[in-house]
Amino acid sequence: MEPITQPTFVVSEERARKNIRRMAEKARASGVILRPHFKTHQSAEVGRWFRDSGVERITVSSVSMAEYFASHEWDDITVAFPVNLLEAERMNALAGKVHLGLLIDSAEVAHRLDGLLTRRAAMWIKVDTGYHRTGLPWDDPESITALARSIAGSRHLSFRGLLTHPGHAYHVTSKDGRVSLFTETAERLQAVKDSLPPDLREACRLSTGDTPTCTAVERFSGVDEVRPGNFVYFDVQQLLLGSCAEDEIAAAAVCPVVGVYPRRGEAVIYGGAVHLSKQAEVLPGGEEIHGYVVPWTGSSWGAVKAEQYVISVSQEHGILRYGGEVPVRPGDLVAVLPVHSCLTANLLKDRTRILRP
Amino acid sequence: MEPITQPTFVVSEERARKNIRRMAEKARASGVILRPHFKTHQSAEVGRWFRDSGVERITVSSVSMAEYFASHEWDDITVAFPVNLLEAERMNALAGKVHLGLLIDSAEVAHRLDGLLTRRAAMWIKVDTGYHRTGLPWDDPESITALARSIAGSRHLSFRGLLTHPGHAYHVTSKDGRVSLFTETAERLQAVKDSLPPDLREACRLSTGDTPTCTAVERFSGVDEVRPGNFVYFDVQQLLLGSCAEDEIAAAAVCPVVGVYPRRGEAVIYGGAVHLSKQAEVLPGGEEIHGYVVPWTGSSWGAVKAEQYVISVSQEHGILRYGGEVPVRPGDLVAVLPVHSCLTANLLKDRTRILRP
Repeated sequence: MEPITQPTFVVSEERARKNIRRMAEKARASGVILRPHFKTHQSAEVGRWFRDSGVERITVSSVSMAEYFASHEWDDITVAFPVNLLEAERMNALAGKVHLGLLIDSAEVAHRLDGLLTRRAAMWIKVDTGYHRTGLPWDDPESITALARSIAGSRHLSFRGLLTHPGHAYHVTSKDGRVSLFTETAERLQAVKDSLPPDLREACRLSTGDTPTCTAVERFSGVDEVRPGNFVYFDVQQLLLGSCAEDEIAAAAVCPVVGVYPRRGEAVIYGGAVHLSKQAEVLPGGEEIHGYVVPWTGSSWGAVKAEQYVISVSQEHGILRYGGEVPVRPGDLVAVLPVHSCLTANLLKDRTRILRP
Repeated sequence: MEPITQPTFVVSEERARKNIRRMAEKARASGVILRPHFKTHQSAEVGRWFRDSGVERITVSSVSMAEYFASHEWDDITVAFPVNLLEAERMNALAGKVHLGLLIDSAEVAHRLDGLLTRRAAMWIKVDTGYHRTGLPWDDPESITALARSIAGSRHLSFRGLLTHPGHAYHVTSKDGRVSLFTETAERLQAVKDSLPPDLREACRLSTGDTPTCTAVERFSGVDEVRPGNFVYFDVQQLLLGSCAEDEIAAAAVCPVVGVYPRRGEAVIYGGAVHLSKQAEVLPGGEEIHGYVVPWTGSSWGAVKAEQYVISVSQEHGILRYGGEVPVRPGDLVAVLPVHSCLTANLLKDRTRILRP
């Protein structure tokens, strides 16, 4: 294998497969469909690990990602992002190739989409169960019923069900709180479903998903499918939230050390905002960090030591703060556990390595 | 021209050329070399606009970028990033092709680099004049002299001079303050130069650069070259700092509207952290934003209206907050003036359009 000389995303196949297996088994035991979100890894190879755990249906967040996975033998794909009418032509092509699920929260968009598509697509109504990003409010069942009715009455759209993403789970710091949020979310979807007329209710599936609630619950209940994504790799955000243990984190960015500043107790790496992303996480003490710094052995990364952080990133630089003596030299490699693995994986998509078990 | 259907970086050639001309003329009138930082645009085409203004030497922030521009007829390139010893082989290849300038702040790295290179490279000593990211402290002239001496005594390294990046200029909110910082920076470099032995002093050039100070001063003095980069596009950060006028901002991200939420006075675009970056700017009122929202006419963007911001980004979504009525519909396009154009340009490198005058 070529030596690492530039910022590189490394994935532990063993840990990622373990994370996948655990989630797949929980879904199977719960009798719900696992339709994992593939925006986290965007990788055909990592996708195969999911297939090895029995996963057959996936979620993506763009038409481009749907095309990519459709070209890698995935044939049941939900684009969990509000329909972008400007890409109707590409959605049409996709709908001719795979079972395509789309997201919608507006009767106007349903009407215009129906006029643009020539092939059938399954429509999920996006329901806002509390996150307030997209979707029709769960406590406005009249609007949801009207939209479901207009979908059911269209030429090319089928009504598939109600879908939500409780992104506010990322702010719930206790596991019990996240379990309750999963239940609340399912109950809100169910309440909307209950208010639908019988013919629509019959067709209606319920879908939720996010890593914090899906890792917190012991069993999935009250929904038909779950769509977590981040759990394949986890990251510092999930670790601090309590969604994973440190040894479940399955990806890191390996970066060259280019400067050592003993007077400041700091080092500088080739690894900045264009590699790790600008996303920060606030530690309990109030400090903003951009990753945990851990040793890199050449084939794996070591354990987290307290107080070794990426404290700042500019375009290509990352500043590492060690709690005292700086244990690295220029030309060494260190590993950074990213704050948000989805963004780091995306930025380093073309420089990714799989660590084989 | 193909219609825009996905997040796309658009560049006003007219404005960018004007920004370039103004900076090039100021450098010429001041008798200093303009060695602009090309990390902002990373584009061979935009590079040609600089050449049209008489620019012949450039700065980049990685060996990869140096290779890219070397393959586009640039033959005098400084990699303004601390030497990454792991890329010595590629630096060697570059040094055989172009006048290569490298950055160094450690005698250990100088020694090891000298052993790895087989061709000559010009070394700039990175001096920390107050930003505290990389470099030897300006008030430690003994260490700087020792490093310059060891460079001068090596086989493949030539001592070129002292280089600094006063990145703390981004926190100086008055123009006068930025003018003073430029002067202070030049004086600190000059003080170090004055302390060098005559033979090293003779060879020593002084280089500084950053957009906030280089736009603030009327004339460059006290240095031999300046290396601003961001000024080619500017962005919201520079606008809020006062480094540019709104009509000097030369780049925007054009994004499809996918949801409209009148109750919240908000819309959602296809355009998130993987397009705009996660970088935020804090408004005077304390609010964090990820860009200004302006109308897109199909061939240019409109003026900034107060209180129309990207207030949140997730991986692919951006939430736009309008001050009241939402003036867009799903399927429309809006333009976002980015907080940090360098990061947005990097993320949308493969989806960039030039708006011809």
